[in-house]
Amino acid sequence: MSLDAVLARIDETLPDALDRLFGLLRIPSISTDPAFGGDCARAADWLVADLRDLGFEAAARPTAGHPMVVAHGGEGGPHLLFYGHYDVQPVDPLNLWHRDPFDPVIEDTAKGKVIRARGASDDKGQLMTFIEACRAWKAVHGTLPCRLTMLLEGEEESGSPSLVPFLKGNAGELSADLALICDTGLFDSARPAITTMLRGLAKVELTVRAASRDLHSGMYGGLARNPIHVLTRILGRLHDDEGRVQVPGFYDDVDELPEAIRAQWQSLAFDHQSFLGDVGLSLPAGEAGRTPLEMIWSRPTAEVNGIWGGYTGAGFKTVLPAEAHAKVSFRLVSRQDPDKVLAAFRGWIEAQLPGDCELIWTEPEGSPASVMEIANPAFEAARIALGDEWGRPAAFVGAGGSIPIAGYFKSILGMDAMLVGFGKDDDQIHSPNEKYDLASFHHGIRSWARILDRIA
Amino acid sequence: MSLDAVLARIDETLPDALDRLFGLLRIPSISTDPAFGGDCARAADWLVADLRDLGFEAAARPTAGHPMVVAHGGEGGPHLLFYGHYDVQPVDPLNLWHRDPFDPVIEDTAKGKVIRARGASDDKGQLMTFIEACRAWKAVHGTLPCRLTMLLEGEEESGSPSLVPFLKGNAGELSADLALICDTGLFDSARPAITTMLRGLAKVELTVRAASRDLHSGMYGGLARNPIHVLTRILGRLHDDEGRVQVPGFYDDVDELPEAIRAQWQSLAFDHQSFLGDVGLSLPAGEAGRTPLEMIWSRPTAEVNGIWGGYTGAGFKTVLPAEAHAKVSFRLVSRQDPDKVLAAFRGWIEAQLPGDCELIWTEPEGSPASVMEIANPAFEAARIALGDEWGRPAAFVGAGGSIPIAGYFKSILGMDAMLVGFGKDDDQIHSPNEKYDLASFHHGIRSWARILDRIA
Repeated sequence: MSLDAVLARIDETLPDALDRLFGLLRIPSISTDPAFGGDCARAADWLVADLRDLGFEAAARPTAGHPMVVAHGGEGGPHLLFYGHYDVQPVDPLNLWHRDPFDPVIEDTAKGKVIRARGASDDKGQLMTFIEACRAWKAVHGTLPCRLTMLLEGEEESGSPSLVPFLKGNAGELSADLALICDTGLFDSARPAITTMLRGLAKVELTVRAASRDLHSGMYGGLARNPIHVLTRILGRLHDDEGRVQVPGFYDDVDELPEAIRAQWQSLAFDHQSFLGDVGLSLPAGEAGRTPLEMIWSRPTAEVNGIWGGYTGAGFKTVLPAEAHAKVSFRLVSRQDPDKVLAAFRGWIEAQLPGDCELIWTEPEGSPASVMEIANPAFEAARIALGDEWGRPAAFVGAGGSIPIAGYFKSILGMDAMLVGFGKDDDQIHSPNEKYDLASFHHGIRSWARILDRIA
Repeated sequence: MSLDAVLARIDETLPDALDRLFGLLRIPSISTDPAFGGDCARAADWLVADLRDLGFEAAARPTAGHPMVVAHGGEGGPHLLFYGHYDVQPVDPLNLWHRDPFDPVIEDTAKGKVIRARGASDDKGQLMTFIEACRAWKAVHGTLPCRLTMLLEGEEESGSPSLVPFLKGNAGELSADLALICDTGLFDSARPAITTMLRGLAKVELTVRAASRDLHSGMYGGLARNPIHVLTRILGRLHDDEGRVQVPGFYDDVDELPEAIRAQWQSLAFDHQSFLGDVGLSLPAGEAGRTPLEMIWSRPTAEVNGIWGGYTGAGFKTVLPAEAHAKVSFRLVSRQDPDKVLAAFRGWIEAQLPGDCELIWTEPEGSPASVMEIANPAFEAARIALGDEWGRPAAFVGAGGSIPIAGYFKSILGMDAMLVGFGKDDDQIHSPNEKYDLASFHHGIRSWARILDRIA
């Protein structure tokens, strides 16, 4: 009954919610560029003011970088922490935008109405779905649905340098029963999703050094060691013919997918032909015997993200370089430990390194995968709530990318996290002409109202 | 008797010969940089004037690039063509020079007196050894030793773009009984050398293209093809564990070294430990079962001279690039055909290319190896003459680099070439602080006098 009133209120006040979102979207809060530091502070202040309007105790809390917006409100029921981020990606190349990235507008497209602006999807539009749900709830009930803590970051797009220190420094204040994160997507236009697996990441830059200087291949070629050969020989063996990573022990801590999840993923009928076709490919290139969804959601990978050595300019130089370099990253799943994986990788390389060659290991770092506790009853509640809103049951999905925050909530604050979001693959986040479907925004707000109704 | 008089004349007039060389060295004839076009013309004119003084009919002949100095003089005996080049390499990085590269000077060093200047060794000092030998001969005899044609190029350091058209356009005028080329080195300080084998070169830039754009490794990693993996996998198999090139048919046209040459090379007692030690290496890295001298002089190679793909800047970007690139070259020997080798290489790559990948083949080009006709009696004559001058017999050596001119003399003009030079490994040609040993210059002049005496 009262949920219906909240939903009706959301429908009626959608134009006002859009006005508010547009106000936030107009602030160019690009966190990575120091020139926009004032705008990041302004976006934080905008959110603080809006949350105070809603009855939260809110403040823009200083960090070594951009402020962290923290707000507390409501009481009773489970204590929920909501996480989003108010900073956005840079907008270059600006000439590829069809309009000013910070002048939001509703556009009619062949696929329906969209909100066009930098941050419309990532993450201002998404975080406002939650705030607007709270607003409608309060308008109908006079109170917030339960005890709520808001944590809105301003450095997510620039590596979150202040996040861990802030979580550690304010662990007592921020610990709740469950974290809600709105920074992910729908499975497809018609099907909501709860992201329950996020791959981790381990990465390193490595250099193979041979001679003390570049050599002329006429004078030395055939006798002197070429480090490009050493590097390609080793990295060329990173996968076997079946696409399996050859670093010893790499799969030791990789769990097979639970049967229930596997069955559900099968039922999603993921169209990998069109997923690959959109980028000019047609053949799944990963591990033999794995489905495309497994490859991107639940299997670990090893990828060379960059390689360079010798002469790479115009024309030709018959040089034997002194060094060759690569940037290599691993997407991690299950219980894979980034340090252990990198140590095994290093050992595997060193075992293949010929005499006269030196391995230089630069800036290894990583974060483990996050696997959500779907046994937490909030997941089932959210799954039903989302199904009620979208007309089709929510899928428990994986995400190939890494969102370290979910892992930090578990490791630093000891709480589970649930990732629910309404973005779409074609939102062009991080790219020119970012958009957020009006349906994502509208049904997103309604979805949170339903989820809060079931959980709170 | 008369040879002794020529040698005595050379000794007496050495200061004058140095003065003349310094005059030529003062002209910054850097052929690759258009800013020095006038200086290249000036160097050509300098040589024309000097050769006319010697009684040659000489002219700076126009080409599409810098002029070609051609001179004719003398009569009787065999008709010899002498080749050298008056252009020099650029001098950057200039700050690594201890003095002005175009202000030549005699310096005392721990290893003896040296002429310090750009071009002192490569090739002004070398070409002047021949001209000074002719001058002393003429002073003593009143005539040049035999019919001589001089061909002095001004584009050797910038790829010799005008050379082949000039040879073809003037084949009748330039054809002689034998070409003499002075652009190579001694075996070591105490041992003269005649270079009888020059490796050829085949080269190509190649690109492996997969997706139509760069992809995010979180979203696509494990499913989409990474062209860096394709490239490293293929190039990592370019050699087997024994260091043999795996391109099919690569060794088909490679001849084993004649037993006499092998025995002579063995006797040279090449110190590969110090050769490698100078550049921070200690282990021969080439074909198993081959001596270090074979590796650099008489065996073909495959080298990746450059590789690049993906993100290579500071920090990390988890990109799956659309393309990966390499520059690959082959040093060729014996009867290896550059086109055939490149075609086999291309076929070998294509056979390993996974579906969804495209190979882009850019600017393949090459020139075959040159193997001199040591049966030509001039070689034995020169070997004895050099032995008389240096006190140790001359070695018939190979050269790892490519000097295409020797091949052109054979293929375009139908004549054999003999390469005799007096450079040393530590001359720092193409590098800052280039030098030419005063002993190389002095004994070089005397060597040519002895060679001309025996041949003419």
